[in-house]
Amino acid sequence: MSQAPETPLLDTVDTPGDLRRLDKSQLRQLSDELRTEMIDAVGSTGGHLGSGLGVVELTVAIHYVFATPEDKLIWDVGHQAYPHKILTGRRDRIRTLRQGGGLSGFTKRAESEYDPFGAAHSSTSISAGLGFAIANKLNDRPGKAIAVIGDGAMSAGMAYEAMNNAEQAGNRLVVILNDNDMSIAPPVGGLSAYLARMVSSSEYLGLRSLASRFARKLSRRVHSSLEKAEEYTRGMVTGGTLFEELGFYYVGPIDGHNLDHLVPVLENVRDSEQGPVLVHVVTKKGKGYAPAENSADKYHGVARFDVITGKQKKSSGGPPNYQNVFGETLARLAESDKRICAITAAMPSGTGVDKFAKAHPDRAFDVGIAEQHGVTFAAGLAAQGMRPFAAIYSTFLQRAYDQVVHDVAIQNLPVRFAIDRAGLVGADGATHAGSFDVTYLATLPNFVVMAAADEAELVHMTYTAAEHDDGPIAFRYPRGAGVGVPLPETPEKLAIGKGRIVRGKASGGKVAILSLGTRLHEALKAADQLEAKGLPATVADMRFAKPLDTALIEQLTASHDVVVTIEEGAIGGLGAHVLTYASDQGLLDAGLKIRTMRLPDLFQDHDAPEKQYDEAGLNAPHIVETVLKALRHNSAGVEEARA
Amino acid sequence: MSQAPETPLLDTVDTPGDLRRLDKSQLRQLSDELRTEMIDAVGSTGGHLGSGLGVVELTVAIHYVFATPEDKLIWDVGHQAYPHKILTGRRDRIRTLRQGGGLSGFTKRAESEYDPFGAAHSSTSISAGLGFAIANKLNDRPGKAIAVIGDGAMSAGMAYEAMNNAEQAGNRLVVILNDNDMSIAPPVGGLSAYLARMVSSSEYLGLRSLASRFARKLSRRVHSSLEKAEEYTRGMVTGGTLFEELGFYYVGPIDGHNLDHLVPVLENVRDSEQGPVLVHVVTKKGKGYAPAENSADKYHGVARFDVITGKQKKSSGGPPNYQNVFGETLARLAESDKRICAITAAMPSGTGVDKFAKAHPDRAFDVGIAEQHGVTFAAGLAAQGMRPFAAIYSTFLQRAYDQVVHDVAIQNLPVRFAIDRAGLVGADGATHAGSFDVTYLATLPNFVVMAAADEAELVHMTYTAAEHDDGPIAFRYPRGAGVGVPLPETPEKLAIGKGRIVRGKASGGKVAILSLGTRLHEALKAADQLEAKGLPATVADMRFAKPLDTALIEQLTASHDVVVTIEEGAIGGLGAHVLTYASDQGLLDAGLKIRTMRLPDLFQDHDAPEKQYDEAGLNAPHIVETVLKALRHNSAGVEEARA
Repeated sequence: MSQAPETPLLDTVDTPGDLRRLDKSQLRQLSDELRTEMIDAVGSTGGHLGSGLGVVELTVAIHYVFATPEDKLIWDVGHQAYPHKILTGRRDRIRTLRQGGGLSGFTKRAESEYDPFGAAHSSTSISAGLGFAIANKLNDRPGKAIAVIGDGAMSAGMAYEAMNNAEQAGNRLVVILNDNDMSIAPPVGGLSAYLARMVSSSEYLGLRSLASRFARKLSRRVHSSLEKAEEYTRGMVTGGTLFEELGFYYVGPIDGHNLDHLVPVLENVRDSEQGPVLVHVVTKKGKGYAPAENSADKYHGVARFDVITGKQKKSSGGPPNYQNVFGETLARLAESDKRICAITAAMPSGTGVDKFAKAHPDRAFDVGIAEQHGVTFAAGLAAQGMRPFAAIYSTFLQRAYDQVVHDVAIQNLPVRFAIDRAGLVGADGATHAGSFDVTYLATLPNFVVMAAADEAELVHMTYTAAEHDDGPIAFRYPRGAGVGVPLPETPEKLAIGKGRIVRGKASGGKVAILSLGTRLHEALKAADQLEAKGLPATVADMRFAKPLDTALIEQLTASHDVVVTIEEGAIGGLGAHVLTYASDQGLLDAGLKIRTMRLPDLFQDHDAPEKQYDEAGLNAPHIVETVLKALRHNSAGVEEARA
Repeated sequence: MSQAPETPLLDTVDTPGDLRRLDKSQLRQLSDELRTEMIDAVGSTGGHLGSGLGVVELTVAIHYVFATPEDKLIWDVGHQAYPHKILTGRRDRIRTLRQGGGLSGFTKRAESEYDPFGAAHSSTSISAGLGFAIANKLNDRPGKAIAVIGDGAMSAGMAYEAMNNAEQAGNRLVVILNDNDMSIAPPVGGLSAYLARMVSSSEYLGLRSLASRFARKLSRRVHSSLEKAEEYTRGMVTGGTLFEELGFYYVGPIDGHNLDHLVPVLENVRDSEQGPVLVHVVTKKGKGYAPAENSADKYHGVARFDVITGKQKKSSGGPPNYQNVFGETLARLAESDKRICAITAAMPSGTGVDKFAKAHPDRAFDVGIAEQHGVTFAAGLAAQGMRPFAAIYSTFLQRAYDQVVHDVAIQNLPVRFAIDRAGLVGADGATHAGSFDVTYLATLPNFVVMAAADEAELVHMTYTAAEHDDGPIAFRYPRGAGVGVPLPETPEKLAIGKGRIVRGKASGGKVAILSLGTRLHEALKAADQLEAKGLPATVADMRFAKPLDTALIEQLTASHDVVVTIEEGAIGGLGAHVLTYASDQGLLDAGLKIRTMRLPDLFQDHDAPEKQYDEAGLNAPHIVETVLKALRHNSAGVEEARA
């Protein structure tokens, strides 16, 4: 690890209160030190780099001008909030970012009073800010809400809904549009083009005309205050009609790295009697760190890296990622099947759709952060005979749940859902875990729901989904590397609703383990350990949460003393469906030691994945323990004393 | 019933092909006859009246100009599509609207090739249209997509996401903004104000300047075609910057009842080489029927009515609606509790929030069709110490599922969800049924999920939710009238996670019925019938799907031979949670005849509610049958022959 950088001024700032005691002329130095500190910290922990670097000056300026934490500063997504964390009493823990027990990679209410509203999914900040603002208004309390939202997040419908409702907040709400023209993927859509036009067409105004425009829009106090900012010479107030039509006072675009512009503008906004105000700030992602500036996408989220060279310490070799297997399989299938399309919501590389897009650019659609639109767009494609794959993370598919129900399931349209990041996700924590998709999809009529046990299964399921024209079908798979099984030359079309026995016999044994998804390998380990204890174990990969392989369930429940289901999902998934079927059919009437293993009923914090699975109780030892405990129960359902 | 009106011209039109053989000069008469027919039909069936009357001319003009069904006409929401149904081969069934076995009250793919994409929830049409347009583009097929969307539906984020992505469709996509300034409730927000400004400021242009503006925007062919429309004299092309900034060619506002304007404009749009085009059409809801024109809100959805007087044949008397009980209870609680707020998403009267708003206008928020924003706005209010109630229909809450998970549940914020239209809803059918909320909410950590068994329980639950500051809490209740129990003078704070025995004893009996929600009364009926057969039955109102009353479950499973759960929801709800708990605890190890009764695994069509419950198998006879069948099972799980 490199030696900690020299940061004499930053060392005097533990909270925004300390910051506000500095002279304006010191803010440049503070920002530089803050940037250095952040680069060093992320170099040692990995995490989101470019976004935070882009908002160093903005972070300093906001805390300098506004009275946080009474004023509520809400960072949209929150992955750009590392500088904010350093300035709000968390510097001592900044090198624990995204580690188990350490700071979250996003904002989090439990972490600090300076995080009034946690995030991780995008586009929530204006709605939340409006909630704070209106609560203060109703209670006649002072205090503004400041929502900082990126241009990418503005493409989500939720941000628009909030803007459409913002007028009632008056000057209690300030929206800062952080326009870095690069959220994760290149920008998409009409809004992005619009912002680019505004930035490129903005005139460079003298202070006099700027001040006069500003004054026309805001209050008189703004006018005089602006005149004091002698160095404020670049044009900062242009059209902005789209935001103005929705009820905002628009200010911008302004240079988000120039503190001599940022501070007076924010002071004017703070003191404005008019509102809500939208401040359009233009920043450069990765600002101040050459390797990041030159490769904003690459440095969106990084592994640990060498601060001098910028080289990321990524492990190489090993099995391919599920994402790549999916993208490459789909691209290959699409060579001979012109109906296959792929849709991503601003996650082309995260989902592997970039690989598909490279081979079939006309059939790849990045809709921006717009899952709702993406799913119904896919439904329209399906209704017109295409074979669309909506590749969306499990947690983000929640954004499109109504579209899944109303446009896909009710109409029984064959949209294929490639559900990435199923199960626990490690460093990104609870907000990114894919815990609920099996539950919320398998409850829907018409749906087929699969989970891949390994990367070879993912190949088969991708093909099975492509060939399934009878209605909606989903297949889920986890984040990261596969387990290392060979990939099949020729994908196989799986029989819908049929599982497979992976170990032991359907016809008999002491214990049957019914697995859905990648816990299969823990199930196999557990079976070995059980066998070693004299308990013959059968392991089935159910493949389908819906429709269930009812024949297999009947067989296994009839021929085993203990039946355990295991899945990487919350209550309501495979276990619930197996229990429901078994009870419906009377399979439990005469008694069966049946147990369902699933994610626990809590939101698990970020940690290393293996530790998360341990906490969740979904590893081989937990399976063994569950079986042994079930066997120790006597017929009255009371645990017997150990021998 | 009134005598069917005389409609000589309409009688010659069975399909849009017939329509297109008419002379333009006949379209006025056809529209008038179509309007008369529609008023007469809805007078006899009830349904959505005002919206359809507002688009009579638009419907005629679209089918006249575009080549439906090859061109895909997609009505947003679809409740305005009755005139469309009459013109597309369904006139013979128009008086079966919303009746069991009859036409749907919305568009529906299964009903007609002229309904390429069904709807009922709002704001999906542009996304779906884009899917059709892009599929045609990829396959080099002709055919445009025409999405007709109301100004209210434009407030939803999904519509914005779609507009933001529309540019790629080019001239294959036409969006018709049907601006009637009145969706269901009065219009809300910045967009609505913007549209109003556009309409009120539109100049009246001569044909020459209109044509020249039009030509500048669209292709040359448009120019010459427009010049032919001699009577086209009102100004129709003004600013429209908001839509233009998002990538559309904006045309409008134009008078949506003037066929001499509509037809040539749509012809020009059809022939335009540029696109996508947004045509801003101004219509009057209820147009041509005085009682509806004068009361657009009241005639949004109507009961059967007398065509001459406009008087609706509503039943009077009887128990109060759940909606009113909720709204009045909340308004009363809010008198002494200044923290209580109510949020509705464009359904103030549907949810009873109008009653709250009347008493506490500053604490009632209609956010428009913007459930996502509404929920996170509520989360922001809760984070700032308020007690917000988000009153949203079960089916519409699906729109905000990610906000429920990410902003409310993960942060454990005390947002109260008043979930209306839980269970089956009768004439509105599958798209409006509230089938999944218990499943998708009870799987979430931190959530409390209740269901009211009657209107008195709803009073208690509203109060219990108000007092619950520990985290999110939801309570669900059905559409329509309560069961007629007396309303409590003083609401009671229910113990979280505790059910109640309503009949029989926890300590013993043959059969235990665990009910969640309003099936309780069928459970009680069933218990009587079982008792009459010599089978003593205990009935519990579980009240909570989460947390479960585990003590009660242990008691009842230990002391009864048959345990049945019943709920108005799909798989994954109470039944699944009871089974999961019981199996976890080993309560099933020694055998228990346990059955879960729930909504079937299919989307039920619209019908009378009692018939829907019968189809679902959730009435008293089905409970009795389930119990008897369970008792006939022998220990091997095989049904024994009847004695």
